[in-house]
Amino acid sequence: MSLVGIIILILSLLGLVVAYFYSRQVLAVAKYPKDASEKEKSKLSEIHQAILEGSMAFLAQEYKYMALFTIFFAIFIGLLLNNPSHGFNDGIYTSVAFIAGCSISVLSGFIGMKIATAGNVRTTASAKTSLAAAFKTALHSGAVMGFGLVGLSSLGLYLVYLLTAKLVPAGVDSSTIMEIVAGFGLGGSAIALFARVGGGIYTKAADVGADLVGKVEKGIPEDDPRNPAVIADNVGDNVGDVAGMGADLFGSSAESTCAALVIGAIAFPGNLGAGLYPILITALGIPVSLIAMFFIKVKKEEDVGSVLKRLLIISTFLGAVAVYFASIWLIPAQYELGGQVFTGEGVYICYLSGLLAGLFIGLITEYFTSHKYKPVKDLSKSCETGAATNIIFGMALGFKSSGWTILAIAVSVFIPFYIGGMYGVAISALGMLGTLVITLTIDAYGPVSDNAGGIAQMAGLDSEIRDRTDVLDAAGNTTAAIGKGLAIGSAILTSLALFSAFLTRAEDISINNPSMLNFSLDNINLLDPFVLGGLFLGSTLPFLFSAMTMKSVGKAAFDMIEEVRRQMKEKPGIMAGTDKPDYGRCVSISTKAALREMILPGVLIIGSPLAIGFLFGIKALAGVLMGSLLVSAGLAVTQTNAGGAWDNAKKYIEKGFLGGKGSDAHKAAVIGDTVGDPFKDTSGPSLNILMKLSAILSLVFVPFFAKYGGILVKFLE
Amino acid sequence: MSLVGIIILILSLLGLVVAYFYSRQVLAVAKYPKDASEKEKSKLSEIHQAILEGSMAFLAQEYKYMALFTIFFAIFIGLLLNNPSHGFNDGIYTSVAFIAGCSISVLSGFIGMKIATAGNVRTTASAKTSLAAAFKTALHSGAVMGFGLVGLSSLGLYLVYLLTAKLVPAGVDSSTIMEIVAGFGLGGSAIALFARVGGGIYTKAADVGADLVGKVEKGIPEDDPRNPAVIADNVGDNVGDVAGMGADLFGSSAESTCAALVIGAIAFPGNLGAGLYPILITALGIPVSLIAMFFIKVKKEEDVGSVLKRLLIISTFLGAVAVYFASIWLIPAQYELGGQVFTGEGVYICYLSGLLAGLFIGLITEYFTSHKYKPVKDLSKSCETGAATNIIFGMALGFKSSGWTILAIAVSVFIPFYIGGMYGVAISALGMLGTLVITLTIDAYGPVSDNAGGIAQMAGLDSEIRDRTDVLDAAGNTTAAIGKGLAIGSAILTSLALFSAFLTRAEDISINNPSMLNFSLDNINLLDPFVLGGLFLGSTLPFLFSAMTMKSVGKAAFDMIEEVRRQMKEKPGIMAGTDKPDYGRCVSISTKAALREMILPGVLIIGSPLAIGFLFGIKALAGVLMGSLLVSAGLAVTQTNAGGAWDNAKKYIEKGFLGGKGSDAHKAAVIGDTVGDPFKDTSGPSLNILMKLSAILSLVFVPFFAKYGGILVKFLE
Repeated sequence: MSLVGIIILILSLLGLVVAYFYSRQVLAVAKYPKDASEKEKSKLSEIHQAILEGSMAFLAQEYKYMALFTIFFAIFIGLLLNNPSHGFNDGIYTSVAFIAGCSISVLSGFIGMKIATAGNVRTTASAKTSLAAAFKTALHSGAVMGFGLVGLSSLGLYLVYLLTAKLVPAGVDSSTIMEIVAGFGLGGSAIALFARVGGGIYTKAADVGADLVGKVEKGIPEDDPRNPAVIADNVGDNVGDVAGMGADLFGSSAESTCAALVIGAIAFPGNLGAGLYPILITALGIPVSLIAMFFIKVKKEEDVGSVLKRLLIISTFLGAVAVYFASIWLIPAQYELGGQVFTGEGVYICYLSGLLAGLFIGLITEYFTSHKYKPVKDLSKSCETGAATNIIFGMALGFKSSGWTILAIAVSVFIPFYIGGMYGVAISALGMLGTLVITLTIDAYGPVSDNAGGIAQMAGLDSEIRDRTDVLDAAGNTTAAIGKGLAIGSAILTSLALFSAFLTRAEDISINNPSMLNFSLDNINLLDPFVLGGLFLGSTLPFLFSAMTMKSVGKAAFDMIEEVRRQMKEKPGIMAGTDKPDYGRCVSISTKAALREMILPGVLIIGSPLAIGFLFGIKALAGVLMGSLLVSAGLAVTQTNAGGAWDNAKKYIEKGFLGGKGSDAHKAAVIGDTVGDPFKDTSGPSLNILMKLSAILSLVFVPFFAKYGGILVKFLE
Repeated sequence: MSLVGIIILILSLLGLVVAYFYSRQVLAVAKYPKDASEKEKSKLSEIHQAILEGSMAFLAQEYKYMALFTIFFAIFIGLLLNNPSHGFNDGIYTSVAFIAGCSISVLSGFIGMKIATAGNVRTTASAKTSLAAAFKTALHSGAVMGFGLVGLSSLGLYLVYLLTAKLVPAGVDSSTIMEIVAGFGLGGSAIALFARVGGGIYTKAADVGADLVGKVEKGIPEDDPRNPAVIADNVGDNVGDVAGMGADLFGSSAESTCAALVIGAIAFPGNLGAGLYPILITALGIPVSLIAMFFIKVKKEEDVGSVLKRLLIISTFLGAVAVYFASIWLIPAQYELGGQVFTGEGVYICYLSGLLAGLFIGLITEYFTSHKYKPVKDLSKSCETGAATNIIFGMALGFKSSGWTILAIAVSVFIPFYIGGMYGVAISALGMLGTLVITLTIDAYGPVSDNAGGIAQMAGLDSEIRDRTDVLDAAGNTTAAIGKGLAIGSAILTSLALFSAFLTRAEDISINNPSMLNFSLDNINLLDPFVLGGLFLGSTLPFLFSAMTMKSVGKAAFDMIEEVRRQMKEKPGIMAGTDKPDYGRCVSISTKAALREMILPGVLIIGSPLAIGFLFGIKALAGVLMGSLLVSAGLAVTQTNAGGAWDNAKKYIEKGFLGGKGSDAHKAAVIGDTVGDPFKDTSGPSLNILMKLSAILSLVFVPFFAKYGGILVKFLE
């Protein structure tokens, strides 16, 4: 085993140990506040149990579908990618890598959900002691997710690589090996489809349904235990923000690493160290983040937000230093790719460029979605003339923020491409994920704090506890916005890296088998009819996809509204507080709707690239991927930021500005917030999956397209 | 003069004669209903005068800006495009062509506005006699616009060509001549910027302002004379739908003809007949549409809608036949372009493909925006759960309709490119505009009928008159939706044709002056850093642009709301009907806001391609144009169709379904409609201008970019 390999193994295992250590710390916290009465304890236990059971019920249902899908798709891969000329079945290797990717993603999600549902009630309990204690509990819950996921990811990738390299017959070239390893990324991305799209529909069906009956019709506050959908809503926070976000970012990390591995195998033939560099820089995030965690401490209320930001900044800085040495060590001073010569220093600059672009995108996102700044203040003001102007201004805000964000992306696409070629883009994508451990930690911290507040409210605990969890929650919201921006940004760069890897690999196959495929990177010209037609065709996918996911939330919310109304009508005692609502039915409605409604978008995402590559060939598929990526990028940012801004405009008014709660402006703001819910938590982030999954499918299925692709074109010519 | 030239001249003059003939017919209709009382007459006259004066006041203001802009930009062109090596100043020729294009577009708009403001009151008056009479008056008003504009357009283009060819020194090649003629298209497009963007802001500031105070706050109906913004609202219909739509389609027609001329000059060197073919097929629309006009007659109420559709279908069919013979006559059996050989038959197929795609897009638009079909019925139903679900479902509807429309576009991009190369795309764009005369006629018919109804309402005439104008208006709405779809579709194909012309011309210059420019069509590869960076950069433009136009409407509507509130407060007699509101101030607020708010988007549209070509060169500019086009296309359709659907969902409920007027569902529908106003009439259609203007600017400024472009790149390398 090489030295790089040993270091990767050690760092990955360190990640798992740290995650285990933090989970012990969280579980060591008492579940009930000190001095809690027996009644409070039983109430708390009941609510906690309901959220836990709801979450697990959703996961169990989802796992059934996932397992079926994984098995079916693994067989599909095994059949389609079989290449007898290699002397072994590539397909079977790839499908094993795929299963490994699926399993590790599922495992990460499961760990995240387990600790989030254990951490929420413990955060409530420790909020009774002090803000610092509550912060620690919530943050450590998040850290289990952060360290655990990244550790598992790099461990899994490395082991899959190691096994593949060991098991394939001698003489198989390293780019074929890396192409097999890319199956791992496909697995991660496929699970993200379930977690992001299914999870996104789940959480917003529950949220919109709960709000429209609870807040609007009945006038009861959020998190009121009389609302039958309230548990589903809290479960949704975990499902969407913990499992969904985690799987999304796991996918990004695994996929951009795979893209870098595939291109690296072509750029650095025979150089194992340089080949493994992408896995190493992901793994380096673990010690770096651990050090950053030691640097921070919360004492006062004002500390919370700045501590989270400090975590990000310290780990960014340390990461930049660590990767610098790794680059010097492993990347040769010069390398050739696609007929051009690039420098080793360039690779590090690409990493830095991604890292900085990520921070910059985070700042743009914060500016446009936080009510500390002008855009959201203007938006709040527009509520005074009603819901219509609020929506108009919110859409304008979303469009504008999208323009600026994609401008930053354009720069961060140009620089690495110019300096490091296609390999540079892949490394830049990894750079943007340089703070992945901390980003995940903060992202998972958010719903834990949010749930903690909900539990305190539902159990009727001291307002002091709720006040403290609100502080935690507010700080989490700001950094969560940064995390969302980063998730989109990294999805864009990851897709571009996969796109490059797909085309590089196609050319590679074409050079070695000119009789099978006649493709060169020079073929993908903007004026080629297939590329151009593909660009337009691809640009329709994000629109169709967003239409499906938005409509799904609408339909699922309808089901939820009807169920809540039915319960309230059949049991009048619920509103009086004398009868208990049936939380379980609402949970199961959200679960069923989520799984039913994700089938169609799932088929669209997976079917389109396969069908287009098969029917029209690689050039058309390249056009489709690029067209889809360009539109998805802008649309995803628009939706996410508009949604975030509407949410915070409502919160701004609820703080007492512009008339405060109950005013006409507030009513208008609530409408904007409801519109924003599926925007920011379902259709916007789901576009991340559209971009990445279609790109990695294209990469993994290159050998299939090379052999059988473009049958319609062959027929036309 | 060639035979083709003589035919073009005759057909163009025929168009002008027909337009004159229809205008005489309209003006021969009495201004007042028969048996109108003196009081009714004076009331009618007063309202009519107010709309007329408001429209003319806006035009006068706008013309000042336009004149300044035209002079300034003509000088700019003259300076930048001066090429001493040609032995004459290309720039001055181009700037004269530019001024001609501006002037003819302004003239067309003026004629359209004049006849619309004369036709509206006469339609009201003839509605007293019969539905058929009113229909005739409204349709003939529209026909003045249709025949006049197309006649002026082909006449202008041909004369500019003729003069340029006569005046340039002998030996100048035909592609340079056609490049100069393209200045005409730039002129048309520049005026469209004022008419579409400025006009779009005008009309919606007035509409949103009038509705939010009138309908929502005061509970008075639409077109109530007590509303101070009511005249501005009616003026807005003319400004947006007559002048704006007319200038937009004039631009499309002139620009796609110019694109075909430029590419044709390279494809058919020395073949004058084939060179003029693009102008001829535009001019052929005139006799074809005239024949179609003879075929139709309205007797019963049900006839109106079907008669308008029949007009479209007959002229489509006749046009297809006429152009077939023109193609056989003029286009050689084979031609070469960009190293590929294409057939003459192929050119005709490209025309047909555009013509059919146009119809198909119209049908998709109708399906998604008319309340006869499921999508709008579902949307109306979603109003029952409030404004938020209405907005969510409306956005989903817009996204979905966009997906299907762009799918049709993708096919209609692929076919001509595959069959006819870049020339094929230009001809396909002309095919989509094959029914331009009739499309314009119906488009201008719409606001005339709409205004006629408004005048009847404001003057307090018999409800019978209002009922008849409502029938005319409803039929116009459906076909207007088709027209809007067509305007976007043709804008997309036109932009693509201009894009092709731009690149073909750049290669052409590069071949003749390799020392000056090193560009080949093979350079614009998807993986080139400049192209790729350009794609992302370009994709930001539609977002930034939409953000600006939406926000502008919001801000201008605020001004209007304040003015209306102020008047109502200062003169309580207005609501009681004893005091007269000051219509003029509202008109001038809309006018000022429109002209002020269009500066920033105008600078963005004009400045971006020039700056990018100058700084980064032709490859980056190609990327920017394509990125902008891809996103603009989908976003324009989304906004326009979502807006149209919200409008019709409201109308559906107002017909008495789902609770009818005044119900909660209706209130939710009104909010959707208000959001949809700037979507469908400002930011959506303005994107047409963004696509086309940036592409024709690139084409006209190719010689400049060839000489001075890419200074930053030269610096980097």
